[in-house]
Amino acid sequence: MSLAATPTGDTSIPVLEAELLRWVGSGDSLLELACLDALFPPGKLLRPVLCIESAKAVGGTADQVLAFAAGIECLHVASLVHDDIIDQDPVRRGRASTAEQYGLAEALVAGDGLSMAGVAALLSSGPAERVLHAARVTIEALRHMCQGIMRETEIRGDLTCAVPTVLNIMQAKTAALTGAACQAGAILAGATPQQHQALRQYGQQLGMAFQIRDDLLPYTAEDQVTGKTGTSDVANRQPTLPVLLAYEAADEADCNRLATVFRGGTDPGTAHRDVLAVLTRTGALSKAARMASSCAQQARAELAGLPDSTRLAELATSAADRQR
Amino acid sequence: MSLAATPTGDTSIPVLEAELLRWVGSGDSLLELACLDALFPPGKLLRPVLCIESAKAVGGTADQVLAFAAGIECLHVASLVHDDIIDQDPVRRGRASTAEQYGLAEALVAGDGLSMAGVAALLSSGPAERVLHAARVTIEALRHMCQGIMRETEIRGDLTCAVPTVLNIMQAKTAALTGAACQAGAILAGATPQQHQALRQYGQQLGMAFQIRDDLLPYTAEDQVTGKTGTSDVANRQPTLPVLLAYEAADEADCNRLATVFRGGTDPGTAHRDVLAVLTRTGALSKAARMASSCAQQARAELAGLPDSTRLAELATSAADRQR
Repeated sequence: MSLAATPTGDTSIPVLEAELLRWVGSGDSLLELACLDALFPPGKLLRPVLCIESAKAVGGTADQVLAFAAGIECLHVASLVHDDIIDQDPVRRGRASTAEQYGLAEALVAGDGLSMAGVAALLSSGPAERVLHAARVTIEALRHMCQGIMRETEIRGDLTCAVPTVLNIMQAKTAALTGAACQAGAILAGATPQQHQALRQYGQQLGMAFQIRDDLLPYTAEDQVTGKTGTSDVANRQPTLPVLLAYEAADEADCNRLATVFRGGTDPGTAHRDVLAVLTRTGALSKAARMASSCAQQARAELAGLPDSTRLAELATSAADRQR
Repeated sequence: MSLAATPTGDTSIPVLEAELLRWVGSGDSLLELACLDALFPPGKLLRPVLCIESAKAVGGTADQVLAFAAGIECLHVASLVHDDIIDQDPVRRGRASTAEQYGLAEALVAGDGLSMAGVAALLSSGPAERVLHAARVTIEALRHMCQGIMRETEIRGDLTCAVPTVLNIMQAKTAALTGAACQAGAILAGATPQQHQALRQYGQQLGMAFQIRDDLLPYTAEDQVTGKTGTSDVANRQPTLPVLLAYEAADEADCNRLATVFRGGTDPGTAHRDVLAVLTRTGALSKAARMASSCAQQARAELAGLPDSTRLAELATSAADRQR
């Protein structure tokens, strides 16, 4: 299984899928079945692609980081499986979430199993010192992710928690891991400290762009395009960046409209429509979109000193522009 | 913080507790609070003690494995936090379980956070090659644990699943990690392959003895001694070893009594009393106790070639004899 001959585009995806399969088994047990179901068909594979492209950007090869990249995807999907339990989301990637399909207890164990398969993959190959360094960076990011997820449960229904709070949560929940994926790929490929630090910053800014856009999608894209339930955030009374930007800019009447929705009790469809109207009126949607673009621009700026970073620059741009 | 001067007894416990604290933080966030609450006051600390004593048994020191041992405990407690969600157990170690106290979503994230703190601790110190080897062994055991926990959810209510099935589940859910704790401690201390393999076998047999005894406790000890709800297994219709031994040996009337309970619907108190009567009549309780003793004996036999294993021998004996 070699990526050496593939160009820098996403032709690495089939190889990555084969590697993922290698780490979760063939479906011989309920655990493997549930893990396979959560992983396949895969999502965007953003984090493992970032890991591979970061290795290439410092002169390394995809082969050097393939198992590690697959491990990061397993750990990311494990967090989605658990997230869907927390948010009681019945739909993920256009089909039943693991919790919906297998039950809560089974999804909990599947998430744990995927997580441990992921750590096993992280530790599986490469020079010991580099592997340990890359794994430490990644595990630290996952600890930040848990902090972010917990903090998110605390601000439910709280419209006064303010923009910096949700930016911190995005940093912890999403950007820490995209940053680590890039830094780890670079470390495994033998990057200099300056290079892997720059790629960490790149990955974090890209992650912020990606997450800001993610929080916009319920208001800018159809459910059948995103594969998720667009009303989930309002149904969970989760104040996201566009909502808080709107709350900051809104007049008293619109503030009251948001407050009504976030007190709960409004049916999700109506809630979503009311919030969308306020987000549009206050310019919050376009403000958030500009913030995503700005993060993508900062991400690209980090690539200045790297030998071959065309693909990474493209990835940053598409993270901020994506419609799904 | 040094264990160098302590004897081989459990005087290492305060040092271990301090090390655990170092890995979960000081309680500055809800995540840290929930993790602290799950870890403290600690349980028996069996797995980290096994890790430390295994290092000592091959001529190493507690200091060499202290962080790793703390990491194993974090990972073990993470599995308990998730287990209590699965089993809907309101009580653990004599107080409210994390799920009961903080809520399901919060307990789920706390388990994930403890798990990642545990992995971070595993990877934190020691020569890179040894650390990687010890961590791989431990993560592999945790993957077995997930397989065991999932398999356990599948046999709920199934009295016909047979003794070998529950022995396999015990092996995966408990013995794999106690075996890995011992093997990893030995690896970190520079053991020969023969030594760390023997300690792995020792730890697995000890784990079997421990788990067989654990499944007996609901029928031999009071809740206030075990700190758990004795009716949990029957309430969850979980066929444990003593129940399956009884089902094998029971006459038709007793088989029917067990079948009635495991169909569900009996109130937990009555169910527990009915099952206890059958377990006693069929001799299943004493048969299981003999199996635990036999595992402990096999564990001790693995210690033959080791320079200093007195404490490990004692631990094996007490795993099979314990009343809590």
